[in-house]
Amino acid sequence: MTRQEPADTPLGDAFHLYDTTLRDGAQREGISYSVQDKLAVARLLDELGVGFIEGGWPGALPKDTEFFARAAKGELQLKHAALVAFGATRKAGTTAEADPQVQALLDSEAPVVTLVAKSDLRHIERALRVDVDEACAMVKDTVEFLTKEGRRVFLDAEHFFDGYAYSPETSLRILDAAAHAGADVLVLCDTNGGQLPLGLAETVRTIKEKTGFRLGIHCQDDTSCAVANSVAAVQAGVTHVQCTANGYGERAGNADLFAVTGNLVTKLGLDVLPTGGAAELTRVSHALAEIANIAPYTHQAYVGASAFAHKAGLHASAIKVDPLLYNHIDPSSVGNDMRVLVTEMAGRASLELKGRELGVDLAGRPEALTSAITKVKRLESEGWSFEAADASLELLLRQEADVPAEAPFELESYRVVLDHRADAEVVAEATVKVHVGGQRVIATAEGIGPVHALDAALRKALSPHLSWLDSVELADYKVRILQGHPGTDAVTRVLVQSTDGEREWTTVGVHGNIVEASWLALCDALVHKSTTVAPGLRSGPGAPPPGTPGSPAADVD
Amino acid sequence: MTRQEPADTPLGDAFHLYDTTLRDGAQREGISYSVQDKLAVARLLDELGVGFIEGGWPGALPKDTEFFARAAKGELQLKHAALVAFGATRKAGTTAEADPQVQALLDSEAPVVTLVAKSDLRHIERALRVDVDEACAMVKDTVEFLTKEGRRVFLDAEHFFDGYAYSPETSLRILDAAAHAGADVLVLCDTNGGQLPLGLAETVRTIKEKTGFRLGIHCQDDTSCAVANSVAAVQAGVTHVQCTANGYGERAGNADLFAVTGNLVTKLGLDVLPTGGAAELTRVSHALAEIANIAPYTHQAYVGASAFAHKAGLHASAIKVDPLLYNHIDPSSVGNDMRVLVTEMAGRASLELKGRELGVDLAGRPEALTSAITKVKRLESEGWSFEAADASLELLLRQEADVPAEAPFELESYRVVLDHRADAEVVAEATVKVHVGGQRVIATAEGIGPVHALDAALRKALSPHLSWLDSVELADYKVRILQGHPGTDAVTRVLVQSTDGEREWTTVGVHGNIVEASWLALCDALVHKSTTVAPGLRSGPGAPPPGTPGSPAADVD
Repeated sequence: MTRQEPADTPLGDAFHLYDTTLRDGAQREGISYSVQDKLAVARLLDELGVGFIEGGWPGALPKDTEFFARAAKGELQLKHAALVAFGATRKAGTTAEADPQVQALLDSEAPVVTLVAKSDLRHIERALRVDVDEACAMVKDTVEFLTKEGRRVFLDAEHFFDGYAYSPETSLRILDAAAHAGADVLVLCDTNGGQLPLGLAETVRTIKEKTGFRLGIHCQDDTSCAVANSVAAVQAGVTHVQCTANGYGERAGNADLFAVTGNLVTKLGLDVLPTGGAAELTRVSHALAEIANIAPYTHQAYVGASAFAHKAGLHASAIKVDPLLYNHIDPSSVGNDMRVLVTEMAGRASLELKGRELGVDLAGRPEALTSAITKVKRLESEGWSFEAADASLELLLRQEADVPAEAPFELESYRVVLDHRADAEVVAEATVKVHVGGQRVIATAEGIGPVHALDAALRKALSPHLSWLDSVELADYKVRILQGHPGTDAVTRVLVQSTDGEREWTTVGVHGNIVEASWLALCDALVHKSTTVAPGLRSGPGAPPPGTPGSPAADVD
Repeated sequence: MTRQEPADTPLGDAFHLYDTTLRDGAQREGISYSVQDKLAVARLLDELGVGFIEGGWPGALPKDTEFFARAAKGELQLKHAALVAFGATRKAGTTAEADPQVQALLDSEAPVVTLVAKSDLRHIERALRVDVDEACAMVKDTVEFLTKEGRRVFLDAEHFFDGYAYSPETSLRILDAAAHAGADVLVLCDTNGGQLPLGLAETVRTIKEKTGFRLGIHCQDDTSCAVANSVAAVQAGVTHVQCTANGYGERAGNADLFAVTGNLVTKLGLDVLPTGGAAELTRVSHALAEIANIAPYTHQAYVGASAFAHKAGLHASAIKVDPLLYNHIDPSSVGNDMRVLVTEMAGRASLELKGRELGVDLAGRPEALTSAITKVKRLESEGWSFEAADASLELLLRQEADVPAEAPFELESYRVVLDHRADAEVVAEATVKVHVGGQRVIATAEGIGPVHALDAALRKALSPHLSWLDSVELADYKVRILQGHPGTDAVTRVLVQSTDGEREWTTVGVHGNIVEASWLALCDALVHKSTTVAPGLRSGPGAPPPGTPGSPAADVD
């Protein structure tokens, strides 16, 4: 993993789309990535095609150190992006070599390092408590040390805009020290996020003219202008833009990678992503929201579910004639869809399309399509969501198209008992009674929690009868308590991602009781798997006669 | 209600802060205001001190017609704002007098009318299906008719920027027609929301120079630049800005009134609100979110709960020295607060600051502080998160500072049974055994799900002994399955927000078993509440004297 430039993007190294979700984005209140999450985030960003992925601050945070170690061991194979480690310049009064945090940057084996340096005189004097000479030496020494070790170095000039307004000489001296020591890009940071685009563009132009350095931009969203400031900076001459997925970040957040990219690609005509990358913006945005466990923001520019949703009324008929008169871009160019609310037109088309995608042909069956739309609408109003649960949607469409999936088993009942015992031990035990392969089977198992126990009991009951069951594993399990129902009696939505080692599929369950919601999603997962297995292989030796009742998930209808 | 100018704002009629939440904001997917809601929204906007409140489209929407009728009857007494009715210019091939929708604008008795007119040649030809002469006549006739009737008229030039780029002559002719007929402000609308600030400011400057008209701006957020575009337009010469509360609106929404106002007041030094108005921004934003039944966006610029929340340990030590070095404005100037979050990223300084905020003084106790940091770090590495759970953190800090909170009860054991019965009914039942007020109490209750049942059983057991318990309610309940532990045996983090009608507090629980995690958070919530109750009131009247031995099992069922 020694790439130091973006690969396979039309603009190559001439333009840097730089993502810092894993470091600055993780500063958002409520986000806490595990190392596993961080690897998943990096893979998605790389699929999208960003040029640089800042993975974290090795040496400062144990999880970040581990992330880089696992990346170096081969767990992260990046196709497009170069991996970046973030860190500070050496401490005052020491050398770069002797500073353990600088050493940790080397140890991370990241080919690119972004160093943060204070560039506001007030911060240098009051927070660092050194003079400007020493602040410059700290920058120079650290950049030189890392470039000599073969690293490509970018400099984040912290508080640049506020600092430049207060003491331009100081801020310029810091940029000079970094550039002359070998830093490749000088990133002007609006750390407190107080800038507005016209003034910021003016400053960027001035710095560019004065220094001739390659400049970058890093904006926080405290004036709600981070995206606008980033784009204005590009128009003023920067060729390196730092963003975070969905604008995650401290306080009001950072510049949103998806809106910035949408603007660069569709408004400025800059090919900052690999060919086809822009059409992935919506998917990747939503997937990254899932990993952060934050509901995707429906009204997000470009990628939000409502970004191209028009309320029926004044413009509805004109939109049908010429959609581009009422959309600033073609939604499909960023992987999004136009929706006309209340009228069913868009819903029909997209559900028909979805059916085709899932192998359920509804094109010639208008009444089945209408019934499917009605059902999806009703279920979504009750809290179901099929956006991320293709497998559950497929089962629903099959049922409406009169080709229902055959359930491999039937539930009679289950019971889960949870004990917090007097000796403080917590135990969970589940019993299921099911009909499978023509037999009635009762099985009991223990688990760490109620859903784990239930899953274990079900597997125990089914395993002797379903030869394919052992290949199916739970890959992920997500719970969302739906708003508008305060307190613990709220409606719970569970998403279960399953894998058989080759494919992954996601199913959904909704119920007031979290265990029942989980059960519904677990059952759908097995029914879905069963439809992909050749009929003769669906059950073990005791396969039931044809005509076995439908999926247990049908209960929810 | 005949005011046609803003009252009691320093800038008076020289600058218009114009709100269209009740018309364009209501286009947001999911918003549906009742007439009562609309009156409440208008009152809050007037309290804030906006200059103009667009109430809706009388004659087109029955609710809007009723809103104006009730306003005219005296239900809406505005102190600052002038009330505005929105409508279209007359239809093609008729007169303004004869057009019932124009008549409805008069009937609304609103002293100010904003007319929308198409100013993009393509829309004139393809949607209106008239020539430019007739489009101009429609504008001229309607403006003249309404001004003769004593109304002040503004013109919303729809699709202005796209139209001006396509056919500048057409767009300018529409502005001319309106201005010469007596329209006071020509509002340039970025209806499809595709503009970026540098280009938009350039266009505004050109139009201003060419025409000399008083200009306004109306931006949609499809490039995530609506706030930036609005502010850039002001810098380029407009003196009338149309916004919606919290950016509500169709697709990606409109320019957010609160961010725009924050920027105008704190960045451009424009006194667009009455004296003291800016300090109401946060309160009014949240109140308007409540009326719209949309959770306030925590990361909203200026007014979000996280807008001044700092997480990084790096910054926290310096924040202690000088908060303004790390905030772009003084949060109190917009009615918001700074908060320091505690996370694994935080160091000593932020924990000490947090302790002070929570009333636990750790400043003079370095060993207690060290031990608290160690504990917080260990717990966070196990999946706990205290940044949103102040109440649990306070209990932890109290323990480390040797002033532990006294638990109002002690758990012996609990059991939860979940049944999915053969008749497909799902039931949850919980039994708790606790020691409270010197007695051993056993209580059983049913619930919709396991946590609901457990909470109900605990309340049943404690309620006779803790007089304050009935005032405590669950306000919100969030579940997060922590990644890195794939499958259903993952670690679960539960956040419980409680309220006693006066305060809200949040507690956290983490466990492999979701029910146990919920239990831990529920217990912390009650212990925290108990610390705020005077010692004599902690138990109810029947409480035994201290030291009474445990009574025999008393099943309160």
